[in-house]
Amino acid sequence: MVAAVRIAPSASTRALNLLRTVQYTHPPSCPCHSNPNHHHHHRTPTLSEHVRRHMATPTDPSRQKEYAFEMAASSIRFGPGATKEVGMDFANMKAKRVCIVTDGNVAKLDAMKQAVEGLSREGIEFTVFDKVRVEPKDSSVKEAIAFAKPYNPDAFLAVGGGSVIDTAKLMNLYTVYPEADFLDFVNAPLGKGLPVTKALRPLIAVPTTAGTGSETTGTAIFDLVSKKAKTGIAHRNLKPTLGICDPLNTRTMPSAVHASSGLDVLCHSLESWTAIPYNERTPRPTNPIHRPAYQGANPISDIFSLQALRSTVKYLPRAVKDPEDFEAQSQMLLAATLAGVGFGNAGVHLCHGMSYPISSQNPGYKHAGYDVDHPIIPHGVSVAVTAPAVFRFTAASNPDRHLAAAEAFGVDISNVKRESAGEVLGEALADFLVKLGDQPRGLKDLGFQRGDIESLVEGTLPQKRVLDLAPNLNSELEGEKAELRALLEESMEY
Amino acid sequence: MVAAVRIAPSASTRALNLLRTVQYTHPPSCPCHSNPNHHHHHRTPTLSEHVRRHMATPTDPSRQKEYAFEMAASSIRFGPGATKEVGMDFANMKAKRVCIVTDGNVAKLDAMKQAVEGLSREGIEFTVFDKVRVEPKDSSVKEAIAFAKPYNPDAFLAVGGGSVIDTAKLMNLYTVYPEADFLDFVNAPLGKGLPVTKALRPLIAVPTTAGTGSETTGTAIFDLVSKKAKTGIAHRNLKPTLGICDPLNTRTMPSAVHASSGLDVLCHSLESWTAIPYNERTPRPTNPIHRPAYQGANPISDIFSLQALRSTVKYLPRAVKDPEDFEAQSQMLLAATLAGVGFGNAGVHLCHGMSYPISSQNPGYKHAGYDVDHPIIPHGVSVAVTAPAVFRFTAASNPDRHLAAAEAFGVDISNVKRESAGEVLGEALADFLVKLGDQPRGLKDLGFQRGDIESLVEGTLPQKRVLDLAPNLNSELEGEKAELRALLEESMEY
Repeated sequence: MVAAVRIAPSASTRALNLLRTVQYTHPPSCPCHSNPNHHHHHRTPTLSEHVRRHMATPTDPSRQKEYAFEMAASSIRFGPGATKEVGMDFANMKAKRVCIVTDGNVAKLDAMKQAVEGLSREGIEFTVFDKVRVEPKDSSVKEAIAFAKPYNPDAFLAVGGGSVIDTAKLMNLYTVYPEADFLDFVNAPLGKGLPVTKALRPLIAVPTTAGTGSETTGTAIFDLVSKKAKTGIAHRNLKPTLGICDPLNTRTMPSAVHASSGLDVLCHSLESWTAIPYNERTPRPTNPIHRPAYQGANPISDIFSLQALRSTVKYLPRAVKDPEDFEAQSQMLLAATLAGVGFGNAGVHLCHGMSYPISSQNPGYKHAGYDVDHPIIPHGVSVAVTAPAVFRFTAASNPDRHLAAAEAFGVDISNVKRESAGEVLGEALADFLVKLGDQPRGLKDLGFQRGDIESLVEGTLPQKRVLDLAPNLNSELEGEKAELRALLEESMEY
Repeated sequence: MVAAVRIAPSASTRALNLLRTVQYTHPPSCPCHSNPNHHHHHRTPTLSEHVRRHMATPTDPSRQKEYAFEMAASSIRFGPGATKEVGMDFANMKAKRVCIVTDGNVAKLDAMKQAVEGLSREGIEFTVFDKVRVEPKDSSVKEAIAFAKPYNPDAFLAVGGGSVIDTAKLMNLYTVYPEADFLDFVNAPLGKGLPVTKALRPLIAVPTTAGTGSETTGTAIFDLVSKKAKTGIAHRNLKPTLGICDPLNTRTMPSAVHASSGLDVLCHSLESWTAIPYNERTPRPTNPIHRPAYQGANPISDIFSLQALRSTVKYLPRAVKDPEDFEAQSQMLLAATLAGVGFGNAGVHLCHGMSYPISSQNPGYKHAGYDVDHPIIPHGVSVAVTAPAVFRFTAASNPDRHLAAAEAFGVDISNVKRESAGEVLGEALADFLVKLGDQPRGLKDLGFQRGDIESLVEGTLPQKRVLDLAPNLNSELEGEKAELRALLEESMEY
């Protein structure tokens, strides 16, 4: 290459020319410069060093690494009592027909009362769909869509947990695309994964749990029963216009729900913080519309993820133990939203990937404190149960980040060696889960046996979108399976 | 009051009822619970303590304090070379006629070349307005609007610094409101301060300086010549759809421009970090559309402001000293954007308030490194010159935050008393400015004399929107004047 020879007169012209020359043949925000994963590099490489280091990068676009990241999040309003304002919000945006989406339980709560009163006060016409299924299936989603299409609302309001908000996003999408086939937008390879090019209608989300962060993301998750897989649709255009985070609405959660939804927040923040860096992801998109929302860790998602982790460690135990601790509950709602912005722009990986088969292959476990008539492994429990093993495994990819996470758990890391990062973080996590109380100490406590592992591995493999972001994971199928098997074995008991 | 008597059976019902009872008679997110300013309170008050503490709050809405905050920011794409993608972005949003907004200098730079090539490649029709005035006046803004209206574009693209992006926001606003009077949306009391209720057209902003953060905010600043005041229009709907932060575009800044725009970032982050908390602001809006973007410090803006401060302290000196230090330049562009999100949702206060008369009453100073034919005090220089005095003054309002800021400058605060927070931060700031080099050591170096102070005070007073967010400032006019006078006197020399 002749780039180093093309030195122009002034330093800045030279720099510009060099960078222009190399920008599409190597990742210009390369890890040796600006990746926080590599902050042990202190000296800045010169431009010609920069060029030399990356000469070997492939020119085939599908093998080229990403060079940019894009950060998008819903507007967030946070304040106790803010639910009352939602009628004025719809009036301000001149909405005339609103479809309220909720489920049978939330329909009876004060959050819904406030929302309905708010719309009524403004004289806005609305209808209520209260049949959202917790852990939606494609069939329940299609039923919801069938409800929305003929009503043809000009705006949506979701009041509930992640299942409600996700269902509302899908009702919005298919109302705007009435002719589309359901699989058109579903994540590839299960669906066609088409990008959403139209603007959707305004959607305001009012979360009643502090967990999924769905009020800030463009992701909607459901069971695709025909393919026996948990999958979803993910595109920035799906994200709500506004999330109204009203801590009065999460006071109604029982303690066990505080705990399990808080563990979802914990894993959102840890997984997005440790996901592969955006500039290690391939392929580089040829059109920005194909840049995924789950793009890997980046300097902005990092800020959200780490802050959410710190808050969760501090406030989740308090929120679980004391139903009067309104500060801790409020902070957990904020942490859930911050973690939502973090993982909504970076992604999650192994804990979430394995959680789907863990929940759906439940051998009969019924989590304490859940007043339901059937076995249930709450989502947060199913993600957290593998966390100690997962972060022991991923630490080698980036010991500094794993040490920083351990520090967030209160570990004094000043004398911890980098090679012990995984051990230390795994132990901090296990300790946190044990102290939180009422948590299974591994898959065994959920009723799984060694003989179930193969089936859990097979159920994890279709989660390509999240496994692609897992650091340290073998890219060959057999190697990947062996690693998942080892992680699940290690998660039998902690 | 009988609230404490209305205890209902279960703890959670009781809590809910109590909170419902009190939520509109006191700020529910009251400082004693969740305000990070008050983290020296460790015990959580019980609900009945909470109720008792706030019984005395006034019920007149105009005197009630705010209870919620709202966080909104443009989507941000960050990556070297990302400017190239802008044509595809407009094609993806089906834009057919784009108005490109820039200034005569930027028009010649590579950023514009990339943008124009991007649009041409996609076959999108566009026109270029390249007459943006640096530090826009109402007359220059009106000229720009007059250009945009008949072209009636379906989208806007701003390529340039803050003046260009701000002008593009105003062109967009008045194209969507062609019949509006110019003063309709201008901040009260100079204008009518009407809220923007219509959605504006898509605006993509490509910053070529690392300073204003305008690519993420809903604020546009200009000189209202008839009223002899710097003012603007601020509403969330003005914010760009997308900011494309391409560090290749800031390489062309001369070292002196790196320095002064970086000082703007420094003050954005310090001022928003120390602004009054959102829940101390009055009045509580009766409709969410009246909640200002400059709403005071809040838990989300805090994250951005503190991170931007840390990055600026670390990278600005490197970016100024070494034109080859691409990592530092990239990090400063990111810091400018993060600070933009921070102050765009929290606001700025005294440094910015006083900077406007300092710049406009310039006695004849011409900043080194600015190749212009007239005197100039760059915006960043005019904000930073009062910073040591300002933060010495504001520290009493919140010593912990000022100590945290001093720590970001590398000061070991472990043995610093809270009452010395202002002294320590003021000194750290002065030291930073001196070491950065080529900065005036006070107003005296800019040519101001003691006799000019009264006129600077008078020029600061109309900046109500930012002065309202200044912590510790006397609310009576005479007291406020005396404090501004003292701050300016102290800023004569540092």
